[in-house]
Amino acid sequence: MRILGLDPGLATLGYGCIEVYRDTCQVRDFGVITTSADLPTGDRLQSLYNDLHTLIPILQPDLVALERLFFYRMSHTIGVAQARGVILLVLSQRHCPLLELTPPQVKQALTGYGNATKIEVQRAVQRELHLCTLPQPDDAADALAIALTASRHCGHING
Amino acid sequence: MRILGLDPGLATLGYGCIEVYRDTCQVRDFGVITTSADLPTGDRLQSLYNDLHTLIPILQPDLVALERLFFYRMSHTIGVAQARGVILLVLSQRHCPLLELTPPQVKQALTGYGNATKIEVQRAVQRELHLCTLPQPDDAADALAIALTASRHCGHING
Repeated sequence: MRILGLDPGLATLGYGCIEVYRDTCQVRDFGVITTSADLPTGDRLQSLYNDLHTLIPILQPDLVALERLFFYRMSHTIGVAQARGVILLVLSQRHCPLLELTPPQVKQALTGYGNATKIEVQRAVQRELHLCTLPQPDDAADALAIALTASRHCGHING
Repeated sequence: MRILGLDPGLATLGYGCIEVYRDTCQVRDFGVITTSADLPTGDRLQSLYNDLHTLIPILQPDLVALERLFFYRMSHTIGVAQARGVILLVLSQRHCPLLELTPPQVKQALTGYGNATKIEVQRAVQRELHLCTLPQPDDAADALAIALTASRHCGHING
């Protein structure tokens, strides 16, 4: 089973795709889609829309896991929510099965507690995916963490 | 000049289209696009996307005016922001010139003060557009108010 994790954002959207086997997970691909702050928001959303429509047929995920929004700063949250609307649109157009997870669910699943730091989550991702180094950039690492958490919600055993 | 006002929402998106002449404005069309709360969010956003892509070529606006988001309730604001992301995407895909206005800007322009009630704004819309009755539903009236405000920002004289 192939799971694509997405960490939504307008400036940087992180993606991490893993292959889930009976007792282990392997990285297939990870990275970020970025848009320039110099462009109008509509053009940035269109760029995100086009890039996602390119990425999903390449990765062909069986499931997409997407982080739910936690409010922490109004202007930032509205920007991320607008990007998230476009992501949800593309997933619907591509008929991708969707699982939504909160940040505490991801932290809890990978480290055992919901208030883990970013670096603790990244170390867990590195360990579970047998990576030589911490996955980078941060948004791609977050996306891999979301994909790994989704694999557990689907009843698969990791690591 | 033809101006389309949009009042963003996921359950109900209001639209109001006006024709702006040198010294008056006339209604061309107004109404709402609705999506069912029984559907997953992605499907509702896709329905909004398709309906907007149908509506805009019919109305052929020279300018689209869109309400900026004011935060007032977290879960509701995130839902509206996700819909707003899809609206901005469609406007970018359709190469529509865009003007964004805040709710106080609209209230100030139509009633003379930024804290006007909904009914005061609707009465101003009715008066300026020479309508026999108050425009309904509320979201369509709000969209007409946004379009009228945009016409003033463009240097046209209304009413």
